Amino acid sequence: MDKIYNYLESNWNNFLGRLKEFLSIPSISTLPEYKKDIYRCAEWLKRKFEELNFTKVELIETRGHPLLFAEYIPPSPKLTVLIYGHYDVQPTDPESEWKTKPFEPTIILDSIYARGASDMKSQLLAQMFATEAWLANEPLPLHLKYLIEGEEEIGSPNIRSFLENNKEKLSADFALNCDAGIHAPDIPSITYGLRGLAYFELELKGPKQDLHSGLYGGTIRNPIHVLCELIAKMHDDKGRVALPGFYDKVLPLSEEERKLLSQVPFSEEEWKNITGVSQLYGEEGYTTLERVGARPSLDVNGIIGGFTGEGAKTVLPSKASAKISMRLVPNQAPEDIEESFRQFLQEECPPEITWKLELHSSAPPAVMNLNTIYMKSAENALEKEFGRKPVFKREGGSVPIVAWIKQILCIDTVMLGFALPDDCIHGPGEHQNLKVLKRGARVYANFYQELVKNRSI
Amino acid sequence: MDKIYNYLESNWNNFLGRLKEFLSIPSISTLPEYKKDIYRCAEWLKRKFEELNFTKVELIETRGHPLLFAEYIPPSPKLTVLIYGHYDVQPTDPESEWKTKPFEPTIILDSIYARGASDMKSQLLAQMFATEAWLANEPLPLHLKYLIEGEEEIGSPNIRSFLENNKEKLSADFALNCDAGIHAPDIPSITYGLRGLAYFELELKGPKQDLHSGLYGGTIRNPIHVLCELIAKMHDDKGRVALPGFYDKVLPLSEEERKLLSQVPFSEEEWKNITGVSQLYGEEGYTTLERVGARPSLDVNGIIGGFTGEGAKTVLPSKASAKISMRLVPNQAPEDIEESFRQFLQEECPPEITWKLELHSSAPPAVMNLNTIYMKSAENALEKEFGRKPVFKREGGSVPIVAWIKQILCIDTVMLGFALPDDCIHGPGEHQNLKVLKRGARVYANFYQELVKNRSI
Repeated sequence: MDKIYNYLESNWNNFLGRLKEFLSIPSISTLPEYKKDIYRCAEWLKRKFEELNFTKVELIETRGHPLLFAEYIPPSPKLTVLIYGHYDVQPTDPESEWKTKPFEPTIILDSIYARGASDMKSQLLAQMFATEAWLANEPLPLHLKYLIEGEEEIGSPNIRSFLENNKEKLSADFALNCDAGIHAPDIPSITYGLRGLAYFELELKGPKQDLHSGLYGGTIRNPIHVLCELIAKMHDDKGRVALPGFYDKVLPLSEEERKLLSQVPFSEEEWKNITGVSQLYGEEGYTTLERVGARPSLDVNGIIGGFTGEGAKTVLPSKASAKISMRLVPNQAPEDIEESFRQFLQEECPPEITWKLELHSSAPPAVMNLNTIYMKSAENALEKEFGRKPVFKREGGSVPIVAWIKQILCIDTVMLGFALPDDCIHGPGEHQNLKVLKRGARVYANFYQELVKNRSI
Repeated sequence: MDKIYNYLESNWNNFLGRLKEFLSIPSISTLPEYKKDIYRCAEWLKRKFEELNFTKVELIETRGHPLLFAEYIPPSPKLTVLIYGHYDVQPTDPESEWKTKPFEPTIILDSIYARGASDMKSQLLAQMFATEAWLANEPLPLHLKYLIEGEEEIGSPNIRSFLENNKEKLSADFALNCDAGIHAPDIPSITYGLRGLAYFELELKGPKQDLHSGLYGGTIRNPIHVLCELIAKMHDDKGRVALPGFYDKVLPLSEEERKLLSQVPFSEEEWKNITGVSQLYGEEGYTTLERVGARPSLDVNGIIGGFTGEGAKTVLPSKASAKISMRLVPNQAPEDIEESFRQFLQEECPPEITWKLELHSSAPPAVMNLNTIYMKSAENALEKEFGRKPVFKREGGSVPIVAWIKQILCIDTVMLGFALPDDCIHGPGEHQNLKVLKRGARVYANFYQELVKNRSI
């Protein structure tokens, strides 16, 4: 491994240059005006695999943004690994709150600041860097299949059918997913559970057009009021989601799992510092780490209605709408949750207000097997680098691909990534700690070694 | 009067051309980018008074948009009338819902469509047209003082101090306010009561920046949730405003006044047609006309928070804000209402969410004296034109100047205008019925006649 580590060390500056190039491309998947940049980003990535002399590199069109498939086939592989990543990023708003420009990657102290730095361009590139380090030094007896999408941040609407139609092409012993984090700079961790997602847009309509609030105020329903009343009713006063039947299928947390989660180092003070709130809040009867990873939640992600410009306009608006997402845990299915939401609206929305509910994206929750040689290999690789065993966590975020890979390709995933909890992903000032990233590249390289070794036993 | 009526008739097309010019100027007072147009509009109006050979015409600078003062002094006036109007208009959003362009006045059937058509450029010009018709034909023994502002739609922030500093200049026997409506095309009406206003902007702040809703959702307060909960608590389930002490100073409606209001022709079906809602809603125990004119109300005029672009973004937002206005009735003072609102927020907002409340504009409520010779003159002028006595109404809108003129100049106002309830003022498709407007110009001309006659008795 020394030669490989040396390669990573002596090529680190080249790698940073490459990372800056990658981060400069505004590959925002949700905004149509960035469609060209998305293509430019996918093509940039394609060239990188060609430079690694991969056996096969393909840009695959979908109904949305293109997928990249790249394959390295050695003479006698011991294992096949499906490596997942995404090259798209979130929008940058509110742009005024960024201290650096989101698509002009800037290194300050130990971190690189840019949209996508942590989620997940750095992770993806560091993993590819580990592959490069191997290929430059030793034969790698692993068959690698990279599947990199450009639509993760919009709920991966097209990858599922690609998995269904390409089972053979994508067959592997397990999947490595680099869209993951590490608990703290010196506390290695493995995420073994992810929440699912059901992301909705709800629109209410009252009067047929905007009215003068003086002439009509107090005589008809205001759709903003009704939207607010509905949102207020979506939680009870104990912080529980109040949609009918919402918790019906939720698997209770076992004592064993509560114990495992309680071993994860966690500081309320740090959580407050990261978020900037003076106190935490959530469902009664659970710890913060349980709430975030093992309990479902509902958040309004956006709301708009009426006059929102500068100053005053005395309008009684015709419409109001909200983006509302729910994070799900086993065994909640997005389909059941949509049903539950529709029932709630049916029961609670007054008849003179019409409502329209659209499901933007959804993902099933996933819990991964802790007892495979792949998981053990990841554990060992982390322990070697950090000098201590990793902790096992359940994450609050959603990575729909993990459940789909399990359902469709029938293989388990190992999540291994190096984003930190305070990297501001999805928010202004997103960044990646480069010291941690370098250790990450070493872990990825070592993970291959562990896989080869464990498979040989 | 025949010569005057003939003048109005034979010059009607010229008048319409002039009205179109006036309506073409986008004098939107709330949006800074229209500042030049506001000036252009004030100057256009100044020229019109100069063309009428007024004794004095002045454009007066304020901290905001300019005021126009114009004075006509006959040799031996019987009365002095202060005529109030405003030349500014509301913004045009949502622009997509207009069928014609808001600043390209378009006549369709009997109406002219444009922003400001009904509120109140047509009213103001029709009243000036009546003055012109008099001056072209007969000596007018009335001293006229026009005071026309450019900030009515933003709450008249500068006219109050102008009144205070110019009591002598503005002294008059009474004020005529043309910023008013008529009940129906064939039902003349006089508005004798106006609601007051307190217009606020409320901003809530939770986490120090936008966070990933998966990683943090369910563990800290979401400011959109809190804003919605607060808004939901602002009314009880009987449609009453639930701020502490909100109704404390509200004068109860007398039986006599309830009787007067019950005589105003009113159709629930028509109200539903105008607004496009399937059923009406409001404070229990009051009729719709009582609710709109004689009872206070609270409306959220706008709300915004989090991600409101296209598609999905899984954000737990840092901020959320709402524009909230309350319509007040005698004797509610905007200052007391602000106090009541602050107390509510103090009590109801959870401690980890910080709130900021700004008062954008305010106006006291006003009820006018029904027993003056000025009011009688208006009644007679309406009866002559429409062949029936006017009904007396209390309007839900706010015209702060009415109360200020009473408080500062110690004179009563008569409201006389010809906007119809379904003219879509402040909304898309604002228009003015031109047949009604022509009758209005005749009423204004006749009103002068009645004033001269009644004063001579």
